Amino acid sequence: MQIEVISNVNEAQAERFSHRTAIVIDVLRATSTIVAALSAGAAGIVPVETVLEARALLCEGQVLAGERFCRKIPGFDLGNSPEEFTAEAVRGRRVVLTTTNGTRALHKAMRADHVLAGSLNNAAACARAAMELRRDLVLLCAGSHDEFALEDGVCAGLLISELQALCSAPLEMNDFGAAMLGLYRNTADHLYEVISGSVTGKRLIKYGSGRDVERCSVVNCSSIVPRMQGDMLVQG
Amino acid sequence: MQIEVISNVNEAQAERFSHRTAIVIDVLRATSTIVAALSAGAAGIVPVETVLEARALLCEGQVLAGERFCRKIPGFDLGNSPEEFTAEAVRGRRVVLTTTNGTRALHKAMRADHVLAGSLNNAAACARAAMELRRDLVLLCAGSHDEFALEDGVCAGLLISELQALCSAPLEMNDFGAAMLGLYRNTADHLYEVISGSVTGKRLIKYGSGRDVERCSVVNCSSIVPRMQGDMLVQG
Repeated sequence: MQIEVISNVNEAQAERFSHRTAIVIDVLRATSTIVAALSAGAAGIVPVETVLEARALLCEGQVLAGERFCRKIPGFDLGNSPEEFTAEAVRGRRVVLTTTNGTRALHKAMRADHVLAGSLNNAAACARAAMELRRDLVLLCAGSHDEFALEDGVCAGLLISELQALCSAPLEMNDFGAAMLGLYRNTADHLYEVISGSVTGKRLIKYGSGRDVERCSVVNCSSIVPRMQGDMLVQG
Repeated sequence: MQIEVISNVNEAQAERFSHRTAIVIDVLRATSTIVAALSAGAAGIVPVETVLEARALLCEGQVLAGERFCRKIPGFDLGNSPEEFTAEAVRGRRVVLTTTNGTRALHKAMRADHVLAGSLNNAAACARAAMELRRDLVLLCAGSHDEFALEDGVCAGLLISELQALCSAPLEMNDFGAAMLGLYRNTADHLYEVISGSVTGKRLIKYGSGRDVERCSVVNCSSIVPRMQGDMLVQG
């Protein structure tokens, strides 16, 4: 199995996804939030790139959610905090979600045969699901504003570590993947410290969303694997 | 002191270098070779981007050196192996050098107030010299064919580690810098294994240049700090 890790959404050319399984990673917070939403019983999450598109797509009974620059969009039902996606708010309902980086990354990955959403919360389950799909893998770190985000890189390294544990043959990976595996190994025993010290971690804490940073830093607490079906992420 | 690490030459926008000191890193092999050339007594190294430009610039008594795709350019005096840059070949002479990634990265960095060439061989000396220049830093990993190269990332992490040892105040760095520091810490005790397993390391070994990979993996064996003066790198 070949693994290519891409450092941010700006580096992701469409042709790199052909005939592969993509795992999109946006730890703070889109993919962690998508896991939380499905865990709370949402029927599915429709990722869209713009606020206009989100408003245009919305149908009665659906939930409109999203953020720009770490803050809830005015007039939307929910922001992008996993804490908000309670059973009361989303059970049985479809969520239309737009975020600064994560939903854009999901759209970039759509050329892949399969698209999964990965986070620290569901890494082991996500690695297992990816392995069962029997394709080479692209791990797309969403990043932040077209730059690499530390928490996404750590998560890519964790995913590779989980994949290695499942695979009898050696994994081949690009240099960036090898770097992220090394980073994860250096980080595993003080993960929260690293995530909370990242650019986005610090910004979220400053904006009063420290609880989100804690929650998104928990490793393998969920077995939910969001998977794209048509235009919607559902429980895989 | 602020440190920004850039993952490959394609990511390097000119404005990021203004009012800063740049350290250009191309471990396999341009910056290691430049250290070797100055160590062997070369008067200076003129980095140029194209083969045509190299031929056009060459004056009598100078040495024409360079590679494309890990191989010496036909008709050139030397390739890009540090082993070739002996005192006999270069002492007292100016070297015109063109390589696939490293010389391009040096040109991209020229907007900086100061430009140094960093490698594993001279990291501690390079960090000391950069600290004395009292500017914020950009560490530009040359990479390989517009992609991140593992050995350059490890070297960026080593440089940050050396800078931290010299600095009483905490260093601020971008997320990519923090990732490379974590990578280096995970790698320090098996550095050759990691460098020889990188994409370029494997390619060089396949092409019979394994000795270069060994030589370029040695940490802090040189106190030479190549520094750009006009169009030429000289001993700083």
